[in-house]
Amino acid sequence: MEFKILRVDLSGLKFREEKIDDKTLRRFLGGRGLGAYLALKEIPKGANPLGPENKLYIMSGPVTGTAEGFEAGRTHFVGKSPLTGLIGESNMGGRFAPWMRRSGYDAIVLEGKADRPVWISVINGEPRFHDASKLWGRGVHHAEYLIRKELGVGPKDGGVVAIGQAGENLVRYASIIHAGSRAAGRTGLGAVMGSKNVKAIFVMGDRQPEVADRERFEKGVEHLKEKIGKHPIKDALNKYGTAVLVNIINQIGALPTRNWTKGTFEKAEDISGEALAEKYLVGTRGCWGCQIKCGRLVKTDDPKWGVPEGSKGPEYETIFAVGSNWENGDLQSIIRLNHLLNDLGMDTIEFGNTVAVLMELFEKKDQLPEEKREELLKLLDGIRPLFGCPCPAMELAYRTATRNGIGEVLAQGARALADYFGCDCVAEARKMSLPAYDPRAIKSMALAYATSNRGGCHLRAYAVSFEVLGVPVKTDPLEVDPKKAKMVKEQQDFFASIDSMIVCKFNTFMTPSPEDYVDLLAGATGWDVTAEEIMEIGERIYNVERLFNVREGDPGDYLSRRLVEEALPDGPAKGETAKKALEVLLPAYYEERGWVDGKPTKETLKRLGLEEFMYII
Amino acid sequence: MEFKILRVDLSGLKFREEKIDDKTLRRFLGGRGLGAYLALKEIPKGANPLGPENKLYIMSGPVTGTAEGFEAGRTHFVGKSPLTGLIGESNMGGRFAPWMRRSGYDAIVLEGKADRPVWISVINGEPRFHDASKLWGRGVHHAEYLIRKELGVGPKDGGVVAIGQAGENLVRYASIIHAGSRAAGRTGLGAVMGSKNVKAIFVMGDRQPEVADRERFEKGVEHLKEKIGKHPIKDALNKYGTAVLVNIINQIGALPTRNWTKGTFEKAEDISGEALAEKYLVGTRGCWGCQIKCGRLVKTDDPKWGVPEGSKGPEYETIFAVGSNWENGDLQSIIRLNHLLNDLGMDTIEFGNTVAVLMELFEKKDQLPEEKREELLKLLDGIRPLFGCPCPAMELAYRTATRNGIGEVLAQGARALADYFGCDCVAEARKMSLPAYDPRAIKSMALAYATSNRGGCHLRAYAVSFEVLGVPVKTDPLEVDPKKAKMVKEQQDFFASIDSMIVCKFNTFMTPSPEDYVDLLAGATGWDVTAEEIMEIGERIYNVERLFNVREGDPGDYLSRRLVEEALPDGPAKGETAKKALEVLLPAYYEERGWVDGKPTKETLKRLGLEEFMYII
Repeated sequence: MEFKILRVDLSGLKFREEKIDDKTLRRFLGGRGLGAYLALKEIPKGANPLGPENKLYIMSGPVTGTAEGFEAGRTHFVGKSPLTGLIGESNMGGRFAPWMRRSGYDAIVLEGKADRPVWISVINGEPRFHDASKLWGRGVHHAEYLIRKELGVGPKDGGVVAIGQAGENLVRYASIIHAGSRAAGRTGLGAVMGSKNVKAIFVMGDRQPEVADRERFEKGVEHLKEKIGKHPIKDALNKYGTAVLVNIINQIGALPTRNWTKGTFEKAEDISGEALAEKYLVGTRGCWGCQIKCGRLVKTDDPKWGVPEGSKGPEYETIFAVGSNWENGDLQSIIRLNHLLNDLGMDTIEFGNTVAVLMELFEKKDQLPEEKREELLKLLDGIRPLFGCPCPAMELAYRTATRNGIGEVLAQGARALADYFGCDCVAEARKMSLPAYDPRAIKSMALAYATSNRGGCHLRAYAVSFEVLGVPVKTDPLEVDPKKAKMVKEQQDFFASIDSMIVCKFNTFMTPSPEDYVDLLAGATGWDVTAEEIMEIGERIYNVERLFNVREGDPGDYLSRRLVEEALPDGPAKGETAKKALEVLLPAYYEERGWVDGKPTKETLKRLGLEEFMYII
Repeated sequence: MEFKILRVDLSGLKFREEKIDDKTLRRFLGGRGLGAYLALKEIPKGANPLGPENKLYIMSGPVTGTAEGFEAGRTHFVGKSPLTGLIGESNMGGRFAPWMRRSGYDAIVLEGKADRPVWISVINGEPRFHDASKLWGRGVHHAEYLIRKELGVGPKDGGVVAIGQAGENLVRYASIIHAGSRAAGRTGLGAVMGSKNVKAIFVMGDRQPEVADRERFEKGVEHLKEKIGKHPIKDALNKYGTAVLVNIINQIGALPTRNWTKGTFEKAEDISGEALAEKYLVGTRGCWGCQIKCGRLVKTDDPKWGVPEGSKGPEYETIFAVGSNWENGDLQSIIRLNHLLNDLGMDTIEFGNTVAVLMELFEKKDQLPEEKREELLKLLDGIRPLFGCPCPAMELAYRTATRNGIGEVLAQGARALADYFGCDCVAEARKMSLPAYDPRAIKSMALAYATSNRGGCHLRAYAVSFEVLGVPVKTDPLEVDPKKAKMVKEQQDFFASIDSMIVCKFNTFMTPSPEDYVDLLAGATGWDVTAEEIMEIGERIYNVERLFNVREGDPGDYLSRRLVEEALPDGPAKGETAKKALEVLLPAYYEERGWVDGKPTKETLKRLGLEEFMYII
């Protein structure tokens, strides 16, 4: 199959086309896999993530935009992360990648650095640079509005990705936003885009993505469509969105609350998917071709927390990040903050965790050394970050996005904030703070977080699926069973392939086997792939990402002190830490992977055909 | 006497010293007068206020920093206004000008434009440029903190003026802020500083201001000190600050409420100086040498509206602008907004009026043409500007200072916002929106606003002093008596001299005659001035400012439609407009001035020794 990359040389303001050979494609598929491979080959060791030597890979995969009924509209971004200094990558819903393929390119790679703000359009194979001086400083929503006005295109024509003020000002967890609310949120790739002086990219066109074996492909599509269509999880996601998890996770005591000092939140019900559906929902929205439609369209009635009627509501992760984790039970405030953080272009998870650390610091300010306490108060300039009180967060969001006062420290992320004031009160792995599942209450998540190449993430292995949801089998979340190591490892590999095809992970709740994707992928590409090959490709990708980290000085597979030393004080997981889980599961995991001390061995690299990277280990 | 100017050539990054001759000084004194004279001579006709051809004059006067007991710590700024396109000038309290004189210069003039952000220090006669890239984007408070840290000076050493994000982003009513809260607020000179890429100026030194005739000078000082010291207005200002006016002005039905559609506010008591003193006051602060100490030091207890304890509280004007004019009775919100607007560097009066217009537009949005309504909602991005609800104002402030979304329109000012959406619902004169005295209820203020050279302003003539406070005599505020024209004219001239010496206008409540200042000025300068000369100098200054306007296409002496056509619906001035006041008082005023149609005649210019500007009329 053909895979065409548009290389964008920002330093020279030139474009170049490149084709990826079929052999390489079959080894990495596209999306996350091909992005990681190219990043490892092309980004020099020790590169400054915010320097011109970093690159930003904007990827589709062979399945992107080919058919409807499952979800193949997602886009994958890869680069070196300004937050972790390791592999940075993030997957985003919506319709950008399908429009990118239609525009004539399967991927766009940003290289170098423009000497002034630009934005880029690609329409039917014709890329162009545009002056972005009038977009710079604007939020994502306003910027997209101005772009569409300038091009004279309607709100449904083509796709835009843009950064907000956070990306411009190099906030280390700036996101890239599409369609106003779809976020490539984690690892700070918005700052990479900002560092290159690229405000936005618009893509549109009529090219139809290639499908090699139409008959087999249709068979694969029908299989997914049918299986997903009749599944109860589809209905739950459609009805309540990802926020359906609030009550479920709270009930098992794994809903991080008050900066990870509790596992249950007494107001969980008030911020649940059920409450959202009952009070504020006005519709649902799916990504390109998707029948699940987990996106929430909402309205609010509190004038303090207005959003445009029908704008996108918060995901579960955001509800935790600026809700339970702040002991904030005001769902309307969460809806507005979600909207605002998208406009400013900041990862809601890292921002929420960072402000939660700030709230704890503020509460314990009398325990800080005098000089630090005074600096904290000076930088806060009167803002009082209190648990349970969402109002000051609006200002903190603006101050972070513009790096003003306390925002200059907040812009570095939760770990850096905690370190700056000398308080080890942060939940993170590889310097990226954790999402909404307490690993003390879901043991496999301890392993999943610790071994995630991009840092604390629930989407590299979503162990919640078996530990809590019973997909494909139900396990006991509090049991530390070495068998779980294999389950995590396999999920990581499977998901790496899923992220590279690219289809949505939510499909895998309903079609949880690699078998489910064989006809789809074989039909789209013309390759005679098997379920085993899909898993092997995933494993190859996971090792490539790990190699990137090893080369850049990986701090290793750990969870921060709070999680391994401080026991949960409440709920069904009362008294639990994540210590034993790591002690038992990590060695078992390394054995499954063929790794020693978190590094691939030569044998493993050989087995996966990654000899070219032997120099790293 | 000696008057030394530091000329700062920002385009060439060079400094130059200049001395003003004694004859010119005696004609314009210093401060506002000398600034206006130099501006008229040096700023070319038709200059872009935000272009390198504009200049910013930062002025002290002959009395500045010479003695304590009255108030001679103020600084005057002059340039071409980006808000009105006419003479721009603003007077600021604090201690900057005394420190500037100590640093070795009586004035600093910014010329040209730096090609990147700089800040300037002047310490004991040595000026220096500094790289401001790390200060750019920061608020005023953080910027001053970083400057003092870099120079290693304590919070009380030397003086800083800085702009916030509003000045950087050329908001047309950006202010220049000193000591975190002292504002040169009106006419947008912060944007002029921003257009020149100057973030801040620090001044410090040991030079003592010259006093020519020490004995006479001391006599003048003692006279003021004593008269002010025992005056009841001093005590009222000390006890309640300028906010003492809230209840007084509300009682006569002149407190602008709900975007100038009412003259009384039912919650006036809640936002009064008395409420401020009772609930939130922790201390008072005076400018350099002042015994009045009208500055409020406050704390708040609402976590939504935190300020650093002991930071400066709002003035009466701000309480109107973001209080009664929004029907906002939450004093703590006003305290926080005041603090925030100072940090962002925006005139609270223009911002408050602009948002009040926005609130009215939002309320009446169904009356807008469909396209305009949709644009308004799109730009608001979910923010709901409702009367009575201060919360969204925080976001509106940030959006204005960074010109994001609706902020791009708000950044142009109240008149421009009203025009953009086609709603003539604004209270202004010369495109600058009005401060906190409704001219329909205080007739002389109609004339004072309309004839103010810098646009709608209460400080060019403060007719409130006789119409309401009875200083020097009590008049009936609702009576339209041609005699009031002379009183306004004389106050304008007197105040022009006061602003040029420079002493604080508040002194004139207690020492209301030019006679009171003869010994002071004669002693400081060695000139044998009289009360008549003080008045003549003031008249000369007023005419120079008017000439500046005439040359730039003065729109004339008017009040906007709302004030002359819509009668007040409530309070003691119910049924009143400002129409008759203008019809009767303007002709009488022109006769007093020797003007025809708002322009000085040749005879008048000759009488005042302004022949060099005859070419203008």
